[in-house]
Amino acid sequence: MKEIKAYIRISRVDDVIRALRAAGAPGITVCRVHGVGYGYESYLFTLAPSEIKKTPEVAKIEVVCADDCADEAVEVIVGAARTGDPGDGIVFVTPVEAPESLRP
Amino acid sequence: MKEIKAYIRISRVDDVIRALRAAGAPGITVCRVHGVGYGYESYLFTLAPSEIKKTPEVAKIEVVCADDCADEAVEVIVGAARTGDPGDGIVFVTPVEAPESLRP
Amino acid sequence: MKEIKAYIRISRVDDVIRALRAAGAPGITVCRVHGVGYGYESYLFTLAPSEIKKTPEVAKIEVVCADDCADEAVEVIVGAARTGDPGDGIVFVTPVEAPESLRP
Repeated sequence: MKEIKAYIRISRVDDVIRALRAAGAPGITVCRVHGVGYGYESYLFTLAPSEIKKTPEVAKIEVVCADDCADEAVEVIVGAARTGDPGDGIVFVTPVEAPESLRP
Repeated sequence: MKEIKAYIRISRVDDVIRALRAAGAPGITVCRVHGVGYGYESYLFTLAPSEIKKTPEVAKIEVVCADDCADEAVEVIVGAARTGDPGDGIVFVTPVEAPESLRP
Repeated sequence: MKEIKAYIRISRVDDVIRALRAAGAPGITVCRVHGVGYGYESYLFTLAPSEIKKTPEVAKIEVVCADDCADEAVEVIVGAARTGDPGDGIVFVTPVEAPESLRP
């Protein structure tokens, strides 16, 4: 199986989720992260020890799918996430072993 | 080594951490993410550009362990996280190279 | 390619980002997570169902780079993140397939 991690604009999350669900993705998780580089403005963190600020917030989307669906999933994400402006983000694919469902 | 990623109910985090520590897991991280699918209710994100809402919050647990401990760790997580109701979540295993400790 | 995941003190994020950027890292993401073990104080989560508390907050840094840059990136992170006190954290490396940029 493959895990697909996409770092995208928060404003594109809705459309990416819809497109992935329409394409049959079984499960998706979304997490907000701070991005530096990859087209995001690259100003530095200026941290008070307890806060991270001044970096753009980015959504990290994670999807796990069968090996032969990975290309399609990446295409679906790119198609739904791309705006054409700098800062659209990037997608990575990593190998994953078979999942263990928690359903009894 | 293996990295085990479990997406579980937030209400099960305590017991999963206790069970993993009792089984000797060296380190664990927990992050809140938004889940869609995998038994979580799959309503869509309805985003104002600056907020993600209406998706259930899920805890993502990450544990790294030796290859021959991965099966046990998955079992421990499943045993502590399972409630039997829909939405219990899912566990994935990915390969990881040897860690570099920051301890001098 | 390799994905490098470092769990470090939040107070070291600034310097780690600066050091990685100076070393040419193309993109970096930062996420706050809760850590248990790995030198972090290992008291348990005592959860009200809706809150995770009493675990130290840790920054998770993710960087993807070419295979032959991974060792240097790990060195850069360790050099910038290490304080010498317990709780400095840990770094993992995982294999990643070639990324798909969202730039048109």
